[in-house]
Amino acid sequence: MSQPVYYLDHAAATPIDERVLAVMRPYFSEKFYNPSSPYAPAVAIRKEYEDAKHILAQTIGAKGDELVITAGATESINLAIHSVQGHIISSSIEHHAVLKAVESREHTLVNPNKKGTISADAVKLALRSDTELVSVQLANNEIGTIQPLRDIAAVVLAERARRVEVGDSRPIYLHTDASQGFGQIDVNVARLGVDMLSLNSGKMYGPKQVALLWCKPGVRLSPLVLGGGQERGLRSGTENVAGVIGFAEAARLAHKQRKSESVRLMEIRDTMQKKLVDAFGEMILLSGNQKKRLPGSLHISLPGIDGERLVFSLESEGVFLATGSACAANQGTRSHVLTAIGMSDAEADGSLRITLGKLSSEKSVAEATEIIIRHVKKEMERMHA
Amino acid sequence: MSQPVYYLDHAAATPIDERVLAVMRPYFSEKFYNPSSPYAPAVAIRKEYEDAKHILAQTIGAKGDELVITAGATESINLAIHSVQGHIISSSIEHHAVLKAVESREHTLVNPNKKGTISADAVKLALRSDTELVSVQLANNEIGTIQPLRDIAAVVLAERARRVEVGDSRPIYLHTDASQGFGQIDVNVARLGVDMLSLNSGKMYGPKQVALLWCKPGVRLSPLVLGGGQERGLRSGTENVAGVIGFAEAARLAHKQRKSESVRLMEIRDTMQKKLVDAFGEMILLSGNQKKRLPGSLHISLPGIDGERLVFSLESEGVFLATGSACAANQGTRSHVLTAIGMSDAEADGSLRITLGKLSSEKSVAEATEIIIRHVKKEMERMHA
Repeated sequence: MSQPVYYLDHAAATPIDERVLAVMRPYFSEKFYNPSSPYAPAVAIRKEYEDAKHILAQTIGAKGDELVITAGATESINLAIHSVQGHIISSSIEHHAVLKAVESREHTLVNPNKKGTISADAVKLALRSDTELVSVQLANNEIGTIQPLRDIAAVVLAERARRVEVGDSRPIYLHTDASQGFGQIDVNVARLGVDMLSLNSGKMYGPKQVALLWCKPGVRLSPLVLGGGQERGLRSGTENVAGVIGFAEAARLAHKQRKSESVRLMEIRDTMQKKLVDAFGEMILLSGNQKKRLPGSLHISLPGIDGERLVFSLESEGVFLATGSACAANQGTRSHVLTAIGMSDAEADGSLRITLGKLSSEKSVAEATEIIIRHVKKEMERMHA
Repeated sequence: MSQPVYYLDHAAATPIDERVLAVMRPYFSEKFYNPSSPYAPAVAIRKEYEDAKHILAQTIGAKGDELVITAGATESINLAIHSVQGHIISSSIEHHAVLKAVESREHTLVNPNKKGTISADAVKLALRSDTELVSVQLANNEIGTIQPLRDIAAVVLAERARRVEVGDSRPIYLHTDASQGFGQIDVNVARLGVDMLSLNSGKMYGPKQVALLWCKPGVRLSPLVLGGGQERGLRSGTENVAGVIGFAEAARLAHKQRKSESVRLMEIRDTMQKKLVDAFGEMILLSGNQKKRLPGSLHISLPGIDGERLVFSLESEGVFLATGSACAANQGTRSHVLTAIGMSDAEADGSLRITLGKLSSEKSVAEATEIIIRHVKKEMERMHA
């Protein structure tokens, strides 16, 4: 059976772009050498690895030697959080990678407003004299809300200036988990005003199990993994050459296509949203900040509907989407994001997370929308029968 | 220019076996789903992932759910060492991944004998009442010596029994870094008698940046990376499905071919060794335990020769080998392994590490041997000119 597949879950995983796989290919076979080996082909691979890091860094407005390559955004985030000893401010709607790492430390979680926005004022209120890190996501992985990082950066900058003035040498950094949004919105470290940034290859059509942590010069990291001294001693282990070559190509492609792709996704998303609103009127709840949202994100709730049941019924027609984020910590529990934005249990339980991306053509999303409408109506009839 | 390549550095890196890459291929594209997603194709991938872990575990005589998948042996080793708080015994000839992780803790490093063997008696002498971990490599990555892990395991077992007898509940575990040797010698956790074992895919013709830490049931790990709760909460981050599928296939192939491959490598290695001894007589020093050595390992020293210079001159004829291990920590410094076995500076500086593997045919190694002999003779003439 080869029914069409409607993949509406790009925030959970993305397939590798064939062009990315093509540039990786030689590094699996003839270019397999250890980049720390002394002979010429290995030295050449070392250079290609460093060059790829440079290209990768450029896509976020940084330099190659400011990156630490890790094995995933979760590791990058843990490394960033491990860099400080003092109090940490984060938000209650971060990914579990941030939440779990932060929870093992002295911390304050700031709550979002109903739209899922973390305000700079809320961060400011949470500041303590011993705060050393603020970690706020670039965009939420469930409801798509884009956070006002520039405003939060201004708060951090002002606190840093205050400390300098009073002769307090305690550092304070701003880290952002940028796992969601690259290729859809501008991700430039200077424009965002952050000191550290985690970015994941596996969510941007690059290979999985590769990520980076960018650190502004001057930020001192404390390694989680010790050994051969790779990545300037900050992350030991033989370099993942194929992975980084692929990550760089994926980032380059995503960066290049960002403007056209974000317009394309927004149009398809808005059309889908309009059809759903037309079909369900006041029964549908749209979540996330409607004005500051990832172009490919659409989060809807149909209170009374069983979202999980709906996900399984949609699957039978090849429509793949999620109720919440795909992560082991989320299974069988209500989304902490939806709770934090004040959703009732019925609203949360009737939620669908739709995240569009490269696999979303205008036609396929239109078809998927019809299928969703049909299945939701059937569910509603079943409930009222 | 396409001159033949004679790769004699399998301990540094191995190319992916084409059969391994073939089984990985679908997981880059159509099977890209996040294994934590709820829809059927993602659930199927979860199962395939768990099945691969099971196959992988079987090759070391273990069960799939006893493995924690990591992003490299360095991470596995760090995770193992992070599992205990107390005193650690290790050896002075471990890989830097072990040494650096151990050095950050209360520890004792046991010295090898001249053959590079870590004796069980030496471990016994280093035991303290607060020792919680003994970490000894399966085989040395530079000189190939295979360690008497069963004997060391007996020491650990006796200490454990003694503690039980006196009512001391402090645990003591034996970990081995088995990065070198899988596919050449028997690696079975029960027969080795270990409690934890680190194993690397990238050294056995599998994908790089994948490894495992096997833990005997009852060993309690403390995660280095927190987040979504993957790998039973012991190593969060979206699963590296393609990597594990490839690792399992690489391990299966290496396990299946081990007996014939080890005989093949030993014959080629012994022939090479004999030719070198015939050519240089008493001027050549053979290192490592000649009776308990990895079949593909041959470590020679030609005191007075500049090994680094020789490596570069051999490279011009396509012979790729190393002076020491390929790792950033080793660059420009003398090998800590050779120092530990009591080599003089002249002997260490005149060393070549030859590690054979799948790319070593009888013919290619014979040719490489002739090239090595020719270049060494030229160096000797140059020195005496």
